[in-house]
Amino acid sequence: MRNILVIGSGKSSSYLIKYLLDASENEKLHITIGDLDINNAKKLIADHKNATAITLDVFNTASRIEAIQKADIVISMLPARFHIEVAKDCITYDKNMVTASYVSEEMQALNTQAVKKGLVFMNEIGVDPGLDHMSAMQIIDRIRDKGGKMLLFESFTGGLVAPESDTNLWNYKFTWNPRNVVLAGQGGAAKFLQESTYKYIPYNRLFRRTEFLDVEGYGRFEGYANRDSLKYQEIYGLQDVKTLYRGTIRRVGFSRAWNAFVNLGLTDDSYTIDDSENMSYRDFVNSFLPYSPTDSVELKFRHALKLDQDDTIWSKYLELDIFDGTKMVGLKKASPAQILQKILMEHWTLDAMDKDMIVMYHKFGYELDGKKYQIDSTMVTLGEDQTYTAMSKTVGLPVAIATLAILNGKIKTPGVQIPITREVYTPILKELEQYGIGFNETEAPYLGYNPLTL
Amino acid sequence: MRNILVIGSGKSSSYLIKYLLDASENEKLHITIGDLDINNAKKLIADHKNATAITLDVFNTASRIEAIQKADIVISMLPARFHIEVAKDCITYDKNMVTASYVSEEMQALNTQAVKKGLVFMNEIGVDPGLDHMSAMQIIDRIRDKGGKMLLFESFTGGLVAPESDTNLWNYKFTWNPRNVVLAGQGGAAKFLQESTYKYIPYNRLFRRTEFLDVEGYGRFEGYANRDSLKYQEIYGLQDVKTLYRGTIRRVGFSRAWNAFVNLGLTDDSYTIDDSENMSYRDFVNSFLPYSPTDSVELKFRHALKLDQDDTIWSKYLELDIFDGTKMVGLKKASPAQILQKILMEHWTLDAMDKDMIVMYHKFGYELDGKKYQIDSTMVTLGEDQTYTAMSKTVGLPVAIATLAILNGKIKTPGVQIPITREVYTPILKELEQYGIGFNETEAPYLGYNPLTL
Repeated sequence: MRNILVIGSGKSSSYLIKYLLDASENEKLHITIGDLDINNAKKLIADHKNATAITLDVFNTASRIEAIQKADIVISMLPARFHIEVAKDCITYDKNMVTASYVSEEMQALNTQAVKKGLVFMNEIGVDPGLDHMSAMQIIDRIRDKGGKMLLFESFTGGLVAPESDTNLWNYKFTWNPRNVVLAGQGGAAKFLQESTYKYIPYNRLFRRTEFLDVEGYGRFEGYANRDSLKYQEIYGLQDVKTLYRGTIRRVGFSRAWNAFVNLGLTDDSYTIDDSENMSYRDFVNSFLPYSPTDSVELKFRHALKLDQDDTIWSKYLELDIFDGTKMVGLKKASPAQILQKILMEHWTLDAMDKDMIVMYHKFGYELDGKKYQIDSTMVTLGEDQTYTAMSKTVGLPVAIATLAILNGKIKTPGVQIPITREVYTPILKELEQYGIGFNETEAPYLGYNPLTL
Repeated sequence: MRNILVIGSGKSSSYLIKYLLDASENEKLHITIGDLDINNAKKLIADHKNATAITLDVFNTASRIEAIQKADIVISMLPARFHIEVAKDCITYDKNMVTASYVSEEMQALNTQAVKKGLVFMNEIGVDPGLDHMSAMQIIDRIRDKGGKMLLFESFTGGLVAPESDTNLWNYKFTWNPRNVVLAGQGGAAKFLQESTYKYIPYNRLFRRTEFLDVEGYGRFEGYANRDSLKYQEIYGLQDVKTLYRGTIRRVGFSRAWNAFVNLGLTDDSYTIDDSENMSYRDFVNSFLPYSPTDSVELKFRHALKLDQDDTIWSKYLELDIFDGTKMVGLKKASPAQILQKILMEHWTLDAMDKDMIVMYHKFGYELDGKKYQIDSTMVTLGEDQTYTAMSKTVGLPVAIATLAILNGKIKTPGVQIPITREVYTPILKELEQYGIGFNETEAPYLGYNPLTL
């Protein structure tokens, strides 16, 4: 038996654990699930004979080391900031490690030791980051193998509600951490590259500079820029590309409506409102509008945002009850972002039978033998229910497949890494297809953003 | 002879030093001016027999202590962050101290020691903060003496160009630190109180929520909210006031035009642009607008800001040459704010003969014997030339007068303080009138923002 230690049995671990349990007989695996709360781990195991649930506090050094020493490989599904103690132990006790999180500086600093000890520390192998790296690099490598030269790379991912569960005017429900959705785009201007010029978008304009994306069978989406479009430029080898853009996918119309909240200051998390507990939703909105003894909050809102009387966007705001003078915020000393999150969670929380959806869209522009081409590659994955969500599937399956591949010596290049090499992405993408996670490619002439230079 | 040590002979020290030199015979003063650069100090002294210029590095402990020990009182005109070492020495060697800066936490922490030793540490005694405190508290105290109850306090100050030197379409020139003007309003939402409700304005809307202010003889101005409107609520004893607002004064139209820079991201100081050195002004503006191979930067700018073809605001932008493709930024790795500052300094720098202007506007609403009243109090001070500016006059005279009053025992209540007591403001405001710094008061029925409750 080979021992796999999974630390963390939260929302994104369900599919991961299911996969490992299903494979445990053939692969001779014993899976130990450690969590602060053992109940969730027990629920996911459901008396499987090749699995054990244990209570594990990652800050309790003795019990953490004990669990890690027994394992052949360690998967950390904890929030990213908790990985490092686990990672240091993995170095000490010669264990391979897998996470779905961004590589922190502390994690990167372990690279030399990991290489020296021949250990694989695989990170960013969930959906975004993860599946985006693998699916993009497979096509980029294929283009280069043919002798093509990359001109453009754009990549969009979105966690959305599945069409059959899409029941509100925003075409959006929270399928992941709601706080991150409310704060999305904050913290500095978005920077990207378009036709060899750097472009910058401040937060207050981010949601007004979207572009449309059509996915066959699923209709039209829109994408807004991530802050970090240039983050993987060197890692992907795209130093000479003219256009480089990474974005987030929403249904059409979401961003324009969301922009009102950004613009009025409702997403601000930098201060708290003293008397927030006793405010109505209407009071909350009104605190961002000029005082008037007579004018309605509605008219001041329309005026501030220059919305015509018959703008259909209005029904989106009404749907959220933000002008309701009887619904109370009820949160003590809350920030505007926390209050907005509360209001949105009343309307955007998934119902028991709701399904989620992950949408990914890559564009690759390249030049080959003097001609220019474009490949569009899209992926849509639907959730099955509230446990086996699209999010847990697209995060958990790559983690699980990578873990087995490392255990079986198929992924063996040591070091702190992300899944951008053929050794890693080829077997994983192939197996993901069996689980219905496949990409749909279309090829067309490349137009770029500047047809005049063609 | 009483020895006054003035540390710092920068822009705001000219009037201060002139005042002290003029008073030196009658008051038996010797003034020592210490500066890193002795030349400026020498220039201001101009061989006056009661003054000495010395080279003084405030970080050189030995020479700093030597200078402070010789003084009877110390005036620090350094940037606020450099006061604390001087202040600690003043505690050690029993010296009174005067600054025109905001009271830092470190400065406030010296209060107990200052009180115990009977030392006066007077701060915030320039123009804003300073003259605003004194002139406001004088009227607030008078209203209270009559038995009135304060309902509203609004206070606006602006450093502007004098009407006779007002030669550009923005009706603005830099009369103080240009960097502070470019960054004004950043760092969090503005918060104020209006008819007993808290109001919040995010940075991206700050310059669109102005109010008009009419000053007799000087025409119309506009005010935008400071971040810290509630900062002096308790200090002024205004806990029960319905409306509390502090703002900055500009000429009408400035803020709406400025808002374009805020909105597009040109005032961002949080990142640098790699290739800024080789950008034209046009390239700079274009980096905040969507890419297009054909559309002009002008049209994209108009479109982004929804400016009609015939909007007169347009000429303000043209005047700054921001669409000029031949003028180069020439700054290495500069932030957008640094680049914008450079562009503005080409147009908004005072000419040799230009004069500046300080405008202050207070509104006081109060209730007395069941009736409501409003007092508007305004002050305008014009500069004489580029050395004896309105800024240096309104900063330097209160500092100088307070220094003499402390030296002569007229201001004697010890402790770290700001000029809000009768003991302090009465003699200073009286003497300032002799220098043409007086307030013009008008009284009218109080309307407030909610006439329905009258």
